[in-house]
Amino acid sequence: MNQQATNQTNQTNNKAIKIGVIGAGGRMGRMLIEAVQDNPQTTLSAAIERQGSSLVGADAGEVAAIGHLNVSIVDDLVSIIDDIDVLIDFSLPAATEQNMKICAQHNVAMVIGTTGFNEQQEAVLAEASKKIAIVYAGNYSTGVNLSLKLLGMAAKAFGTDADVEIIEAHHKHKIDAPSGTAYMMAEAVAAARGQNLKDVAVYGREGQTGARETGTIGIHAIRGGEIIGDHTVMFIADGEVVEITHRARARMTFAAGAVRATTWVIQQSAGQYNMQDVLGLND
Amino acid sequence: MNQQATNQTNQTNNKAIKIGVIGAGGRMGRMLIEAVQDNPQTTLSAAIERQGSSLVGADAGEVAAIGHLNVSIVDDLVSIIDDIDVLIDFSLPAATEQNMKICAQHNVAMVIGTTGFNEQQEAVLAEASKKIAIVYAGNYSTGVNLSLKLLGMAAKAFGTDADVEIIEAHHKHKIDAPSGTAYMMAEAVAAARGQNLKDVAVYGREGQTGARETGTIGIHAIRGGEIIGDHTVMFIADGEVVEITHRARARMTFAAGAVRATTWVIQQSAGQYNMQDVLGLND
Amino acid sequence: MNQQATNQTNQTNNKAIKIGVIGAGGRMGRMLIEAVQDNPQTTLSAAIERQGSSLVGADAGEVAAIGHLNVSIVDDLVSIIDDIDVLIDFSLPAATEQNMKICAQHNVAMVIGTTGFNEQQEAVLAEASKKIAIVYAGNYSTGVNLSLKLLGMAAKAFGTDADVEIIEAHHKHKIDAPSGTAYMMAEAVAAARGQNLKDVAVYGREGQTGARETGTIGIHAIRGGEIIGDHTVMFIADGEVVEITHRARARMTFAAGAVRATTWVIQQSAGQYNMQDVLGLND
Amino acid sequence: MNQQATNQTNQTNNKAIKIGVIGAGGRMGRMLIEAVQDNPQTTLSAAIERQGSSLVGADAGEVAAIGHLNVSIVDDLVSIIDDIDVLIDFSLPAATEQNMKICAQHNVAMVIGTTGFNEQQEAVLAEASKKIAIVYAGNYSTGVNLSLKLLGMAAKAFGTDADVEIIEAHHKHKIDAPSGTAYMMAEAVAAARGQNLKDVAVYGREGQTGARETGTIGIHAIRGGEIIGDHTVMFIADGEVVEITHRARARMTFAAGAVRATTWVIQQSAGQYNMQDVLGLND
Repeated sequence: MNQQATNQTNQTNNKAIKIGVIGAGGRMGRMLIEAVQDNPQTTLSAAIERQGSSLVGADAGEVAAIGHLNVSIVDDLVSIIDDIDVLIDFSLPAATEQNMKICAQHNVAMVIGTTGFNEQQEAVLAEASKKIAIVYAGNYSTGVNLSLKLLGMAAKAFGTDADVEIIEAHHKHKIDAPSGTAYMMAEAVAAARGQNLKDVAVYGREGQTGARETGTIGIHAIRGGEIIGDHTVMFIADGEVVEITHRARARMTFAAGAVRATTWVIQQSAGQYNMQDVLGLND
Repeated sequence: MNQQATNQTNQTNNKAIKIGVIGAGGRMGRMLIEAVQDNPQTTLSAAIERQGSSLVGADAGEVAAIGHLNVSIVDDLVSIIDDIDVLIDFSLPAATEQNMKICAQHNVAMVIGTTGFNEQQEAVLAEASKKIAIVYAGNYSTGVNLSLKLLGMAAKAFGTDADVEIIEAHHKHKIDAPSGTAYMMAEAVAAARGQNLKDVAVYGREGQTGARETGTIGIHAIRGGEIIGDHTVMFIADGEVVEITHRARARMTFAAGAVRATTWVIQQSAGQYNMQDVLGLND
Repeated sequence: MNQQATNQTNQTNNKAIKIGVIGAGGRMGRMLIEAVQDNPQTTLSAAIERQGSSLVGADAGEVAAIGHLNVSIVDDLVSIIDDIDVLIDFSLPAATEQNMKICAQHNVAMVIGTTGFNEQQEAVLAEASKKIAIVYAGNYSTGVNLSLKLLGMAAKAFGTDADVEIIEAHHKHKIDAPSGTAYMMAEAVAAARGQNLKDVAVYGREGQTGARETGTIGIHAIRGGEIIGDHTVMFIADGEVVEITHRARARMTFAAGAVRATTWVIQQSAGQYNMQDVLGLND
Repeated sequence: MNQQATNQTNQTNNKAIKIGVIGAGGRMGRMLIEAVQDNPQTTLSAAIERQGSSLVGADAGEVAAIGHLNVSIVDDLVSIIDDIDVLIDFSLPAATEQNMKICAQHNVAMVIGTTGFNEQQEAVLAEASKKIAIVYAGNYSTGVNLSLKLLGMAAKAFGTDADVEIIEAHHKHKIDAPSGTAYMMAEAVAAARGQNLKDVAVYGREGQTGARETGTIGIHAIRGGEIIGDHTVMFIADGEVVEITHRARARMTFAAGAVRATTWVIQQSAGQYNMQDVLGLND
């Protein structure tokens, strides 16, 4: 939230944005409900679960373990659509497809975190975006979206004068490497330099490696303990180094980002937006 | 140098840009001469010292301790102005004022690192910029200029949702704190958030400080050993942290940045530019 | 746990150490119960609360939100003292004083985290230590205790050849600075160099500070977001730097350290020990 | 130098230790000469080169580019052995073998940095150590020797409860990986945990790696720019992380360490010592 919004004292606006949450009983849904209540501009007005869920009828706040909110979980979006200003939907493609149609009909803005759309669903998204404002992003963290933008600028400024090395760190249970975010960062650098990541990525170095090849990107995966996710990208020029680091301290930050997007999207005209638009990084 | 330039194989362009250096016998002048010779696109064609310097007549390369270059130091810019494509001037305001007039007359581009211009000299700069392309900057490091740009974007994206803390580290001989670069960084953050730095800066914390005030900027000065200059700016949000770090490893990097600017300015039409223009950060 | 213990496969030893926890219903007590159950060598056999607590009679596992453990909370240590191998006591001095007397009578080892003993209570501790093994420490984190030991060694090795600077970071709600742990670290350095911390501590630098004075210790307090607690101590020599960093990621680590101490203390003869003894740092 | 030495004001001791340097015209020899003159307790009294060197007869200070010292380079150690309190020898095994014999005969202490001794040379070293005090080490950096000691303690304290990851960074010209120092650090950890490094080292991670195996040591080699040499060892436990970092800022630090060793060895009785003895790390 920018300073202007933070300082906003207009009472009529406080908690004025009414939010509906899809998948209210899931892990992400519970975090979204908590984040909605934490944000000074938003309030939970509806919580939706799939038909047949045992949580239908329960209080959404109690399910989220943040106390009674007087919002019963329902299984029919249409029945409460008029109580909603913005719908947050982190669910599955087929469900989100229906929800987009309903929101477009009822003129309700959306923040979507569902991934894996097929062509049909992409088409529904494009159609709905003509009638309502939709934010659609794979990652709602302010820091990750910001970092990707900064990396592109840094890569462009240094070109291949700076050697780029990426170090990511995650918990010991993670079964693959490097992380998806590390790949996104490497691709942001490669794209800004006109490279194809596959041609320049180097994973680990051991033995007689020879001197470093100009233009390559080293990617290193640290594993240990319960680290949620740290990423550092180094731009190492001959006489100076620039490092951009992102540390995730709590998974809650992704839910808070989605709620932040609701406070932005409600002020937009119809169209499809991403998190970098919300953050003003594309201005 | 950007990738395009790196990959450039056009033989006729190699070492083709002829550079003159003002103050060739000074500490910065010697580094500039070395940097000119190091850059694959530039060559030293003239070296100028003040009248009366004992180094007039000496070989510029030998003075810079990089071997004979067959370029004798002269004390009259006009006498060798036709041998120069771009003049680099890191000297004093009064000298630079005369040099700008000469370059404008002879249509020679300039890269200026002189600081402390008065109004009269600013006016000469503005006038000269109508005839020739001039890069004028207080700091020619790619990394510092890039970092300032990134900080503005980060500050805008986070607003006061993120607590900003700046940590700088310099050698034990430094007699003031914080560093000029730390102030520039703090001001970049404050400006992006619509703040006046004086109202929000906090230097050190001890005792019963109370909880951190939203919107303040902490600035901390580490001193020790022979550290050339490190700066880290932390954006600490509730669930995530973004850090932007710059480490200067060698003072030579500032000279190399100025030479890089010569390879850019020679392609520009008349006007006044800064290092962020050279780096493409304002596109 | 050291490697030997990790590799231990003797089935009869698994979960064989029976632990009692004082103050089972408090915040620290609940974490201790969880940590006892997490440790492969220990099991909760008794949970004690003060007389009159509404939690007496409740199941200790349910209170700690880790599931039913079939251990009812009681209000009388003596009644269940025979079920305990080691008692963990993080409570108040007056209560701990009584508990030490009871444990000494019944030959039950103790791990004590209570702070603020007066002379009378110190005397009871000394007396009890003649009969039973007691670990008594202000901080049970492996990392903090280790770091203090390492800092002493580093300070001794470098002497005042290295400039020492300490940077600590905590959440924005913290109302004092620097942190207690930062003071402990600064004192470890000062003591190893034969200094009095008050004479050499420097908090923040601003303005015309003059060159750094040899032998001083800079202490800097970062505040922001929800940082649990990071500490870095830099030893900055002219040509090299050594940094020792501790990052607390979860408060649970302190409870886990206390449980680790139970698995060590049960093997000791009567005496008073600290956490550095448990970690083998004083061997 | 420890504080005691720093504060030493006894005038008779200033610059009182007379140092001879073997290989005075080589790169390391020149740095040693500069370091001898920089140390407040030592002075250059003799400089030796191999027979036939064109530098024999030249002034050692001028060769080292630190100004005239009035010490001519000679090619015969015996001829000036009486002018020396301690001989510093960073040369080749065959030459050092002869020098050890001469020093033992003339009762002159030694600081040796020569590597690659064969059995015969090791025997000469052992024999000479019975008559004179000799410091013999592969690395004279205070920070590296200190770090190795700290790593052993940390590894012992954490056991395999902490996941260990090592990140080293060197300049882009380095043709092998990981660095020798990174291997020394990994071996210090493995030894303290009773492991064989070959069994537990992991170099880089990519693809479906599976969860991290307990007890492994990750080693990652960053390459870029002109980084002299940084090493970080992370001990990542579930709730906390300890990091030990060494940064070499200037190669001069290794020469300064050798000179520091001369001021210590002159106070010792006959015997063979290493740099950890000099630093008091084995007390």
